Amino acid sequence: MKTQPAVVLLSGGLDSTTVLAIAKDEGYTPHALSFDYGQRHSIELQAARRVAQSMGAVDHVVTAIDLRVFGGSALTADIAVPHHLDVNELKQDIPITYVPARNTIFLSFALALAETIESSDIFIGVNALDYSGYPDCRPEYIRAYETMANLATKVGVEGKQHLRIHTPLIELSKAQIITLGLSLGVDYSITHSCYDPDQQGAPCGTCDSCLLRRKGFAEAGLDDPALIEGPG
Amino acid sequence: MKTQPAVVLLSGGLDSTTVLAIAKDEGYTPHALSFDYGQRHSIELQAARRVAQSMGAVDHVVTAIDLRVFGGSALTADIAVPHHLDVNELKQDIPITYVPARNTIFLSFALALAETIESSDIFIGVNALDYSGYPDCRPEYIRAYETMANLATKVGVEGKQHLRIHTPLIELSKAQIITLGLSLGVDYSITHSCYDPDQQGAPCGTCDSCLLRRKGFAEAGLDDPALIEGPG
Repeated sequence: MKTQPAVVLLSGGLDSTTVLAIAKDEGYTPHALSFDYGQRHSIELQAARRVAQSMGAVDHVVTAIDLRVFGGSALTADIAVPHHLDVNELKQDIPITYVPARNTIFLSFALALAETIESSDIFIGVNALDYSGYPDCRPEYIRAYETMANLATKVGVEGKQHLRIHTPLIELSKAQIITLGLSLGVDYSITHSCYDPDQQGAPCGTCDSCLLRRKGFAEAGLDDPALIEGPG
Repeated sequence: MKTQPAVVLLSGGLDSTTVLAIAKDEGYTPHALSFDYGQRHSIELQAARRVAQSMGAVDHVVTAIDLRVFGGSALTADIAVPHHLDVNELKQDIPITYVPARNTIFLSFALALAETIESSDIFIGVNALDYSGYPDCRPEYIRAYETMANLATKVGVEGKQHLRIHTPLIELSKAQIITLGLSLGVDYSITHSCYDPDQQGAPCGTCDSCLLRRKGFAEAGLDDPALIEGPG
């Protein structure tokens, strides 16, 4: 069993919660890192806190960053989140919910935290299948980030550690992610995926993220526990 | 004359102020970007505002980020800034004033801003001579960042623009930077370099940054106008 610390980027959604379970299962000591980045609501951060606590992260760093100054996305600016009746309506080009350079910013903070806690392992739940429209979810992007990160840090210069960006979900379908998570004991009822929940935090069911989540549970032959029980 | 927009990372110090002058001289329309990152004082941001205004940046985005949660540096945590009697005392290993992943975080926000304003040019005042102890000031780091950035963004994916990280100071001595800046009309009296100023903003004269600045003016055969006139 490894006992090295690892940084796990945690949004409190289905993907990053599964990644936290994988990091733990692989024997890492997970340090969760979440962002308060001008989301329209705090439901997502509440879910991240629930997940970090219930899944045994040794700590949970929440850092505020202000992406709103950059505008440009339905997730951070005053642009309506698109809704669809069917998952097949999702286009393959870059969606309006894409936040400029988001994963690059998130990984950069993860790198700072990794260097501070002397970790050489960062976990991120990017997925190249369901998010093929996002440039910063592709394997070639992640490999380039890793190369850069090893040149950016003390550990890279001193040659003591080789920093790795772990992307255990990158080639998995949503159904495969859910099946894997359940086998590791993930309780998906406490996760939150919706881009546009109501004031009580209930998912809209028709944004890109809700549709992909619904399709995943359907393909896995399961009901979504978050829709039955609601967030705990 | 180019009229493309460029993002210029601006701390309000000698180096980044010179970079802003260079970007303008090369015909770019400069958008200045500064960070409120838990500095011990706001003197640095005040200098950045003065510089952006007086040197004709078309806008000045200041975004708050909280690096203090990561600790690890005399510039952000409650660790004393080291003072020296002489510049020759500066060690060549990684100094305590190094902030983990700082340039990586700064460039990532610059990338987000560049994508939002549809710019493919980012200017940063890194210097590999005076800051040889900082891993994220080396040319090989910058080239790796550029490669990653072109994979991270819409413009990279669509192949419309090739994003470039400009580092016009990377091989210059401090004296050469000052001479170049003066030839472009930079008023160094409004810049601020000190890591540890007093409450009125006067530089300490003995931190790494003050010593390198003093050495630069001495080698250029000049007096530092900030020491004569004080910040305007």
